[in-house]
Amino acid sequence: MRIAHLGHVELRVPDLAASRAFFTETMGLFVSAEEDGRIHLRAWQDFDRHTLVLTQAGEAALGRIAWRVEAPEDLDRFAAHLARLGVDVEEVPAGSEPGQGRTLRFRSPEDHLLELFYEIERWKERDPALASDVLVHPQRFVGRGVAPRRIDHVTVLGRDVEALQRWLTEALGIRLNYFTEDEGGAMSAAWMSTNPLTHQIAIIRASEPGQTLHHLAYAVDSPDEVMRAARLLVDGGTPIEWGPGIHGTSGGMFLYFREPSGHRMEVWSGAMLLLAPDWEPRRWAPEPFRALGGNLFDAAPPAGFRSWT
Amino acid sequence: MRIAHLGHVELRVPDLAASRAFFTETMGLFVSAEEDGRIHLRAWQDFDRHTLVLTQAGEAALGRIAWRVEAPEDLDRFAAHLARLGVDVEEVPAGSEPGQGRTLRFRSPEDHLLELFYEIERWKERDPALASDVLVHPQRFVGRGVAPRRIDHVTVLGRDVEALQRWLTEALGIRLNYFTEDEGGAMSAAWMSTNPLTHQIAIIRASEPGQTLHHLAYAVDSPDEVMRAARLLVDGGTPIEWGPGIHGTSGGMFLYFREPSGHRMEVWSGAMLLLAPDWEPRRWAPEPFRALGGNLFDAAPPAGFRSWT
Amino acid sequence: MRIAHLGHVELRVPDLAASRAFFTETMGLFVSAEEDGRIHLRAWQDFDRHTLVLTQAGEAALGRIAWRVEAPEDLDRFAAHLARLGVDVEEVPAGSEPGQGRTLRFRSPEDHLLELFYEIERWKERDPALASDVLVHPQRFVGRGVAPRRIDHVTVLGRDVEALQRWLTEALGIRLNYFTEDEGGAMSAAWMSTNPLTHQIAIIRASEPGQTLHHLAYAVDSPDEVMRAARLLVDGGTPIEWGPGIHGTSGGMFLYFREPSGHRMEVWSGAMLLLAPDWEPRRWAPEPFRALGGNLFDAAPPAGFRSWT
Amino acid sequence: MRIAHLGHVELRVPDLAASRAFFTETMGLFVSAEEDGRIHLRAWQDFDRHTLVLTQAGEAALGRIAWRVEAPEDLDRFAAHLARLGVDVEEVPAGSEPGQGRTLRFRSPEDHLLELFYEIERWKERDPALASDVLVHPQRFVGRGVAPRRIDHVTVLGRDVEALQRWLTEALGIRLNYFTEDEGGAMSAAWMSTNPLTHQIAIIRASEPGQTLHHLAYAVDSPDEVMRAARLLVDGGTPIEWGPGIHGTSGGMFLYFREPSGHRMEVWSGAMLLLAPDWEPRRWAPEPFRALGGNLFDAAPPAGFRSWT
Repeated sequence: MRIAHLGHVELRVPDLAASRAFFTETMGLFVSAEEDGRIHLRAWQDFDRHTLVLTQAGEAALGRIAWRVEAPEDLDRFAAHLARLGVDVEEVPAGSEPGQGRTLRFRSPEDHLLELFYEIERWKERDPALASDVLVHPQRFVGRGVAPRRIDHVTVLGRDVEALQRWLTEALGIRLNYFTEDEGGAMSAAWMSTNPLTHQIAIIRASEPGQTLHHLAYAVDSPDEVMRAARLLVDGGTPIEWGPGIHGTSGGMFLYFREPSGHRMEVWSGAMLLLAPDWEPRRWAPEPFRALGGNLFDAAPPAGFRSWT
Repeated sequence: MRIAHLGHVELRVPDLAASRAFFTETMGLFVSAEEDGRIHLRAWQDFDRHTLVLTQAGEAALGRIAWRVEAPEDLDRFAAHLARLGVDVEEVPAGSEPGQGRTLRFRSPEDHLLELFYEIERWKERDPALASDVLVHPQRFVGRGVAPRRIDHVTVLGRDVEALQRWLTEALGIRLNYFTEDEGGAMSAAWMSTNPLTHQIAIIRASEPGQTLHHLAYAVDSPDEVMRAARLLVDGGTPIEWGPGIHGTSGGMFLYFREPSGHRMEVWSGAMLLLAPDWEPRRWAPEPFRALGGNLFDAAPPAGFRSWT
Repeated sequence: MRIAHLGHVELRVPDLAASRAFFTETMGLFVSAEEDGRIHLRAWQDFDRHTLVLTQAGEAALGRIAWRVEAPEDLDRFAAHLARLGVDVEEVPAGSEPGQGRTLRFRSPEDHLLELFYEIERWKERDPALASDVLVHPQRFVGRGVAPRRIDHVTVLGRDVEALQRWLTEALGIRLNYFTEDEGGAMSAAWMSTNPLTHQIAIIRASEPGQTLHHLAYAVDSPDEVMRAARLLVDGGTPIEWGPGIHGTSGGMFLYFREPSGHRMEVWSGAMLLLAPDWEPRRWAPEPFRALGGNLFDAAPPAGFRSWT
Repeated sequence: MRIAHLGHVELRVPDLAASRAFFTETMGLFVSAEEDGRIHLRAWQDFDRHTLVLTQAGEAALGRIAWRVEAPEDLDRFAAHLARLGVDVEEVPAGSEPGQGRTLRFRSPEDHLLELFYEIERWKERDPALASDVLVHPQRFVGRGVAPRRIDHVTVLGRDVEALQRWLTEALGIRLNYFTEDEGGAMSAAWMSTNPLTHQIAIIRASEPGQTLHHLAYAVDSPDEVMRAARLLVDGGTPIEWGPGIHGTSGGMFLYFREPSGHRMEVWSGAMLLLAPDWEPRRWAPEPFRALGGNLFDAAPPAGFRSWT
């Protein structure tokens, strides 16, 4: 019983048309399905049918975070395990989401909407203009816009970081890889994963009630591609909120900015892979984190951005 | 009296529509003007109104190679100098080519059509979707396709490389930077420039009569961008003819391929700048050229490609 | 019961001094221990005490391939499982290899020497000149030579690729990710993994009896770093055997060359991560493999190199 | 009569041993000569015998800025021209500086020590461990430390930026490429060049009397190499003062830090080349400069660093 990888994330967006234009033209994602008020997107080398779902909504908010489990029978196992923990699980029948099989839907103690599924359509592009001759490629690399290779991670906001981290570990088996502490010794941010990526989900302490999403990250292949994305974003009128920099915690090079509906996005690259089976969660006290953990470099992030420090 | 830089190159193309699609969508150039049978294009950071002209023609052939001189009065000086050398110079009035001023037109001893001009419209993009807030940018960097930064050089074919090289030096002041010799000690290729670029024009010995163009090159910024271009080209059905590799002569990383009308193109990056005023032409004998000069690496180019060796 | 990752590889080298100089100065690995006739090395971000062992020997040959299992109790489970399969397993006591715990040692059906272990010393550099202030770093990044980030994979030679692949899957749980077939439909090469890396071990059909190692690969972070390695190797007198290119099978950019004792090494970067739990082994028939699978580009590898095609 | 390129810069350093270690091991420059209290260094592809001179001194200060002129006879022409302008010129005989020919030495109106020379020894490495088989290379690329390719530019401090800019243009023919203005409309910084590099010398308004050097810059080839340098510097205990970022003025990616004697250094890459003969100086008013000109990104430089704004 194990989560294999982050499947997709739903963003509720007030300006669906503007967000659609940004994610396709500027970010360079591809639409795999589009219906009333809902758009399914994926990066060029995402093998799943979709990794981002945009849903028309009154306010910008985080929707579902959907995880793919390792085996079909893991769904029953997780259902039983979650029931034992007193988690209220909704069974969503196959096909409710296009291309997606049977799904378990439930909420975290801080109300994040989560899903577990196993079946998802493998994408193989049929449009000749986008189909690839390279047999493993789900589609062509066309290099439009930022053109990330794949979804990477989602970072949520929470009031009690440590409690939420413990629940994610206990309920879903997501291990803690590193965390920050505030001056009082309380956990202020946590980075967690179920595979060698340094994190597939992170939690950052919310500065205001009601916040749910800190950012959603897509991965590019190199520092060069991060800088290319940075130039492209700025030159297209999207200012960089923080970065380019390198997180000392993971080694990942980063770039934060806002999509038109207001969600913060990250383009990142190059973090280490945690292949060791006995990686111990690293604790970042306020001081080394301030100097090196948040960013190896001196460039100060904007006031209020690092709400977890 | 000096040539400041390569201005633009005209390619005569049998399939204008296919070449237009390739140069805009795959190469990521931008159309600055389009009229019956003629398209003017430029790379995103080409400051001139156009650096590539595609002209509908029955056969793929090299058209004009147009050079920008350093000062308006250089046109009169070059006209007199060329007349003294017995070169037949045609005066083309300003405006014959859109955006271009008075132009001298003449032919090399091997019939390459050459032009000298000074006035050319500086591009400042007016389409809001492509205009940049960065005041020096002629337009936005949008990262579409290969997205080269600027035109780099043109390589022509000739029967008598040394004679043609000497004529370019004497008539136009283009200095020789490096050259290859065949087993018999005859010059088989020559690379020439009037500014710190290692070459703006090169000559390679033609293997068949009537050939004029070897390739036209646009520059990208890094090895990463060359590899990105390579992946994008191959995945889009354009095979790489030779490369990726690094020319030992210049240090430039290269990639050769064909556009739909059959012209060979090069994407390249990272050659050294020759800033020294007394750079001596380097002679590459067959042996070091075979091992290191053509390509630092072992990957053999296709038969017939290196027609100069 | 699972293999977590490739631990280290032993190379038997006739010229220990020359190989040591190459791996430290040119490749930029670091010596963690050195004793009579045996040197332990690691890349700057290898967390284990060593990932490469050089042993003085009469002939260049592959020594041990050592794997780290996921949990301490996996050693007993693998011992029982291997016994059931009739594999003769030697118990090597903790400390026989410096820094390494209890180890199971056995041979593949084609005589490759294999090891399983769990305990290995985590490296934390004590030399102040190499120690890092970034708390997760095992040591400083000093950027000497090729400076790979970590060990990536080992590729062995075998007479019966399919039989060896099946044994590795059955005995050690290493899954098949992609493979090539020859014209007769026999498996000629196989790439296998136990984690999201596209392969930690591959098998290529041997062209002569007695061969064991095809190559050992270390990973760098970007195409730029591969090209930097290529320039550095060639300029230092180490010719590139094949590359730079991109394997169409994995997307990994590659570079092959020989270390002074004759072993083939690879520097590679940027392959995709296989995060899906249901990745199906991809079959590369001779034709697409020849055109795109081996290398996306046209550059022909040297005769005899691709002995599996 | 023209300056061809920036030749070399002398830094007066209180801690010669520490600066030597930093420039060789961390920056990856090479010592071409060393004598009592004076060290000559060059980057691996600097063709001149030296581009940096470190001189033991009581205080960190800018020493000479030496320029190479285009032709031997330019020295007489400049001597006459400077005399006409009332500049006091000292004739320094050939050989006073090792490897350097006849030299004119004089001071700017703000007391910067300047030199003009033509003859300088072309470097061809004789140490076999550093010699290159690639015939144009002055030495091997060994990739040690930051390993810049060549010297790029020097930025000085001045009290009256506009007066100093005008003098450099009038006395030495260095053209103005772009400049910033303060709120009162006075020139606060100026970037100047005699070749297609965006600047070989820049002037920034000094915040305190007696300051002379703002920074000295060496060039690397790509954003990837800038980030590699950044990681290497920080991991080696040299904090980044500002960056990584991209100057909107030139497009150059930057990184500022201090060498052990206190001089600010820059590693930079990728600025545009100004090939047009009629480039008009661009004026950056305070507002666009603040938003985009200094850095395309949001990361605030440290207080007091941008003393010209």
